[in-house]
Amino acid sequence: MINTQLLNPKSIVVVGGSDDVQKPGGKVLKNLIDGDFKGKLYVANPKMDQVQGIASFKNPKELPQVDLAILAIAAKYCPSTIQLLAEEKNTRAFIILSAGFSEENEEGAKLEKEIINIVNSVGGSLIGPNCIGVLNSNYNGVFTTPIPSLDPKGCDFISGSGATAVFIMESGVPKGLSFSSVYSVGNSAQMGVEEILKYLDESFDPKTSSKVKLLYIENIDKPEMLLKHAASLIRKGCKIAAVKSGGSEAGSRAASSHTGALASSDVAVDALFKKAGIVRCYGRDELATVASVFMHPELKGKNIAVITHAGGPAVMLTDALSNNGLDVPHIDGEKANSLLAKLYDGSSVANPIDFLATGTAEQLGDIIDACENDFEDIDAMAVIFGSPGLFPVYDVYDLLDEKMKVCRKPIYPILPSVVNVKDEIEHFLAKGRINFPDEVVFGNALSKVYNTPKPQSEKIDLPEMDMKTIRRVIDESENGYLAPEKIHMLLDSAGIDRSKEGIVDTLGAAKVLAKEIGYPLVMKVVGPIHKSDVGGVVLNVMNEETVISEFDRLMKIKDTYAVLMCSQHSGTEVFIGAKREDKFGHMVLCGLGGIFIEVLKDVQAALAPIANEEAVEMIHSLKSYGIIKGVRGQDPVNEDKFADAITRVAALMKVAPEIFEMDLNPLLGNKDAVVAVDARIRIEK
Amino acid sequence: MINTQLLNPKSIVVVGGSDDVQKPGGKVLKNLIDGDFKGKLYVANPKMDQVQGIASFKNPKELPQVDLAILAIAAKYCPSTIQLLAEEKNTRAFIILSAGFSEENEEGAKLEKEIINIVNSVGGSLIGPNCIGVLNSNYNGVFTTPIPSLDPKGCDFISGSGATAVFIMESGVPKGLSFSSVYSVGNSAQMGVEEILKYLDESFDPKTSSKVKLLYIENIDKPEMLLKHAASLIRKGCKIAAVKSGGSEAGSRAASSHTGALASSDVAVDALFKKAGIVRCYGRDELATVASVFMHPELKGKNIAVITHAGGPAVMLTDALSNNGLDVPHIDGEKANSLLAKLYDGSSVANPIDFLATGTAEQLGDIIDACENDFEDIDAMAVIFGSPGLFPVYDVYDLLDEKMKVCRKPIYPILPSVVNVKDEIEHFLAKGRINFPDEVVFGNALSKVYNTPKPQSEKIDLPEMDMKTIRRVIDESENGYLAPEKIHMLLDSAGIDRSKEGIVDTLGAAKVLAKEIGYPLVMKVVGPIHKSDVGGVVLNVMNEETVISEFDRLMKIKDTYAVLMCSQHSGTEVFIGAKREDKFGHMVLCGLGGIFIEVLKDVQAALAPIANEEAVEMIHSLKSYGIIKGVRGQDPVNEDKFADAITRVAALMKVAPEIFEMDLNPLLGNKDAVVAVDARIRIEK
Repeated sequence: MINTQLLNPKSIVVVGGSDDVQKPGGKVLKNLIDGDFKGKLYVANPKMDQVQGIASFKNPKELPQVDLAILAIAAKYCPSTIQLLAEEKNTRAFIILSAGFSEENEEGAKLEKEIINIVNSVGGSLIGPNCIGVLNSNYNGVFTTPIPSLDPKGCDFISGSGATAVFIMESGVPKGLSFSSVYSVGNSAQMGVEEILKYLDESFDPKTSSKVKLLYIENIDKPEMLLKHAASLIRKGCKIAAVKSGGSEAGSRAASSHTGALASSDVAVDALFKKAGIVRCYGRDELATVASVFMHPELKGKNIAVITHAGGPAVMLTDALSNNGLDVPHIDGEKANSLLAKLYDGSSVANPIDFLATGTAEQLGDIIDACENDFEDIDAMAVIFGSPGLFPVYDVYDLLDEKMKVCRKPIYPILPSVVNVKDEIEHFLAKGRINFPDEVVFGNALSKVYNTPKPQSEKIDLPEMDMKTIRRVIDESENGYLAPEKIHMLLDSAGIDRSKEGIVDTLGAAKVLAKEIGYPLVMKVVGPIHKSDVGGVVLNVMNEETVISEFDRLMKIKDTYAVLMCSQHSGTEVFIGAKREDKFGHMVLCGLGGIFIEVLKDVQAALAPIANEEAVEMIHSLKSYGIIKGVRGQDPVNEDKFADAITRVAALMKVAPEIFEMDLNPLLGNKDAVVAVDARIRIEK
Repeated sequence: MINTQLLNPKSIVVVGGSDDVQKPGGKVLKNLIDGDFKGKLYVANPKMDQVQGIASFKNPKELPQVDLAILAIAAKYCPSTIQLLAEEKNTRAFIILSAGFSEENEEGAKLEKEIINIVNSVGGSLIGPNCIGVLNSNYNGVFTTPIPSLDPKGCDFISGSGATAVFIMESGVPKGLSFSSVYSVGNSAQMGVEEILKYLDESFDPKTSSKVKLLYIENIDKPEMLLKHAASLIRKGCKIAAVKSGGSEAGSRAASSHTGALASSDVAVDALFKKAGIVRCYGRDELATVASVFMHPELKGKNIAVITHAGGPAVMLTDALSNNGLDVPHIDGEKANSLLAKLYDGSSVANPIDFLATGTAEQLGDIIDACENDFEDIDAMAVIFGSPGLFPVYDVYDLLDEKMKVCRKPIYPILPSVVNVKDEIEHFLAKGRINFPDEVVFGNALSKVYNTPKPQSEKIDLPEMDMKTIRRVIDESENGYLAPEKIHMLLDSAGIDRSKEGIVDTLGAAKVLAKEIGYPLVMKVVGPIHKSDVGGVVLNVMNEETVISEFDRLMKIKDTYAVLMCSQHSGTEVFIGAKREDKFGHMVLCGLGGIFIEVLKDVQAALAPIANEEAVEMIHSLKSYGIIKGVRGQDPVNEDKFADAITRVAALMKVAPEIFEMDLNPLLGNKDAVVAVDARIRIEK
């Protein structure tokens, strides 16, 4: 419920504003004043007529109409103040900095609930409580520093933790990262990270909105909302990076199946981020670096020119890029030679392009022009230029800035000399540029961005299934593991191939069953104890003719009263599992069976539903994919059928969400089929 | 050939010193002056009488006796100047900053050679040419900035690249990293990284020497020297971290065997570092962070207390530590409760220990005291304390410094607010402290240090082998693949179990052969075509009795003229390979066979010779180790025998270094034995 009053208030009152800038109420007022807030600014403070040069109202009843209230008073006074402002002052946006609410105790939770009701009753916005506030190019509504440079095209940053938001800005500001908005959601009483992201999605304007979103999340309360709006924003051209912390603790939970043990909630977070196209980061420095990559034009291919005046960092960067799937391709040919002619003796243009410690700004310009115009294979440039501290390098950084304005290909500035040419770097950043001080940190971040898959398609066509039967089986079942016949019905209704069998005692029935089972099949006598010894087992039955002749023969064997028929399978053991993950819906896992699960933990996970391309990508991402493709002359596993089975398991979860856990382990896969040989399904309604 | 004149010169002449501090000759002089060099300082400059206030000699012949010469003149003038100084001025140490030597062309290489000869002829030291110089607490002999804070207990840093040395200091200086010495070896004409490390080892004094060594290496020319002295220093209590760049390009070379394809020269670097106990880093920021960890007391266990005034960074750090094998164990009990009583409401001591945004310096002191004295499980403390920018935090950082002085357990300061409390952090660093600005970067570095194995033992007892036979086989062989009988001789002489076989036609010979082969064995008739049909195959022969009776029976079968006997094996396919790696000697690899090599590239490598514990560690480090241990009721592989075979292959390489490549693939391993079933050996003398 974000509204104009929150985003662009014409007037703000700081309730609890004071002269003490070491307290939140004083500091937020100072930030508003320092930020040159263009609207009307008031203070409510029972003891003062004026605070920091701003008119203060001892009784809030005397306040004029005011759009936004920022509260920095004790929790217990907040509800009545908010009621007064909402009812009498037409205030429609509230930021509560104060703590002492649901994060502290029951009493605080009650106060918080009271406040939500009041704010909701007037259709207002509420940020907090227990947060550092809100910051955008209209006003500095936070009580903390640093205030980053604000720019409508900077990052939109939503944080589930106030202190962490500060520390993330501490990482980004020295690199030159600018922000469009910062939302610290605190207790998320009315709006959490998900709601604000939803707002950014629904209000997205391709012309004016920032295209970079950063998230710091400690709990994902509404995974579906997060997935929907993150993916939607990315489809609209945005880039999103997020830290979701607290992953390590969740891994230890007990579980009753392979799928359970492998599918920790952190795997669900991974799966969600992957499906949405979010770049997952694990620390502040990494998040700030990925954000810095985002602030450059999009990297459209994997060929990077590494341009440098010093060998070492170029080699380290080349290692980092090529170890992570990007390329630093060899450059040669006529155009390369004519570039080389412009550089000093001893330079190299083979890539890394090394124009030596003595290289000039002019030469750098020639190199960038060649990479932009002549070297068509090159998709981006990383320019490493530091200083041993002998002379200023303003000319180089000015040239870099000019080239960045006109080049279509992204240029990433790696300026390592944060001590020696501190002033030049500051001058460069002041033009709105960003610095990557460490080439390897940069290389890892660039690769991570490049390797993050696009969001999965919004509309997923579910495979055709017999939903009626599925629902009937589920509705009739109780909690616990399903009986085999029910499992068979579910698999058959979902179109998941399984090993089939049946017992027949007439030729007619045998022909019908053979059709149902398909070929090749196995026929065995029922009755005799030593089936093989009496010639009562027939393998590799390939057609109806053989069924007819063998049925006849088998039924004549002594003691035989019926024939068991079952499908005959061989192939590589693969595995598909599914598990309901609190709030996330169902996670589906796949991999190779046996030791690959138990010893190597080589599984891929995705959230249901799963589109066919996504299932294919899961299979391709397995470390043991080579085995599925077929190695050493061994039969491959039919990838289409494997992928189809994955999408069907996922679709089954959407139709039958009462399934808590499901294991198809193993399925046997060969070049023709992927067939479930054993299955377990547990219901928990 | 490092000498006192280089380390602690009583007098220095800067040849080519000038007033232009934007040139190396001017800047190195300025650095010497700024660094307050205590000895006599002269300049040789043909045009000046005085340079930067220092007496300049137009003709170097007029110079007084001088210990150390720093040359910043054109390459072609260097030899004659050095000759003059060496012969007439008793100069015994030379640092050549100038470029234009072997790195440029043949002519330069000749000049370099000439210089080496002159310097060697007087037993002098030579650093460079083409380097930034040398820096230690006696003098600032570099032409670059920043000059880090110099401290005999700081890092000794040796760099194969001058610019990279500068940029590494740019990473370390803002964190507070101090240095004891910096050597930029340039072209390594007389001394490279290895020689300087050797000197640091041989001159190591546990009382006065620094215990932290950092290396930046682009080429390892003398791997054996590096291994020997790095391991020796670490055994003496030092810690070493190194970046070896350029690893990614080497991987693409063509190779003729599994071992060849898997054993790139970068794997050899890994193996060398692991054997020496060197912490391998991949970037400047990582190197500086690992060095910062080194500068703290040694971490003796894996239990970390995370102490924080903000939740987010503590959770991210906990994730980073526990995902990398360290623990943030739960803390409770009486002593925990009494600590909790000293903190504000809402604090937690369960670990992370969170004393809230309002937490005080006094409380931090109580927490640290409890971790130091009361919580015995805790091995170290990571203290996260930043600032939202409201008030100064000098008191907290002062307390931290005081506690670090008295605590035995390491305390790692994570001070994220590099903008908000810049002054406080500088004040803290000025006391000789170090800051880790990013908790995750710190956590990864700490884990890396903790997880790096200790150096392998110096004396490796080679297993007993028939060296005479090995040498005879090798000496008699030509280049290329060995014939099977020669392979058998080598394996037998080296004590490597192999599948054995032979043909016998007398009972006496059969009994002898059976003893040689061991049980169980297989006996087959030689002569008949359909051996099975005539009852001519006996499996599972377990003793001599059966050999006797079956030999008799088999020989009576029609057409039989002899009996083939071979050992009968079953088990898991494993693999051992060895490959000679230019300069590194032989690398030995092990892993599981088949798909585990081809698809999963799951191998471990070590340099020969290999001690038994090292072989065991290799086996344990395999991702597929669970299979060797035995999973799902399957037989394990005998680890002792597998490790023994690895050590024997390694020892064979030391006795027969002419072996270029060797593959034992597969060996069959079960709980009793590990036996080579197929082997290839290639000789290249």
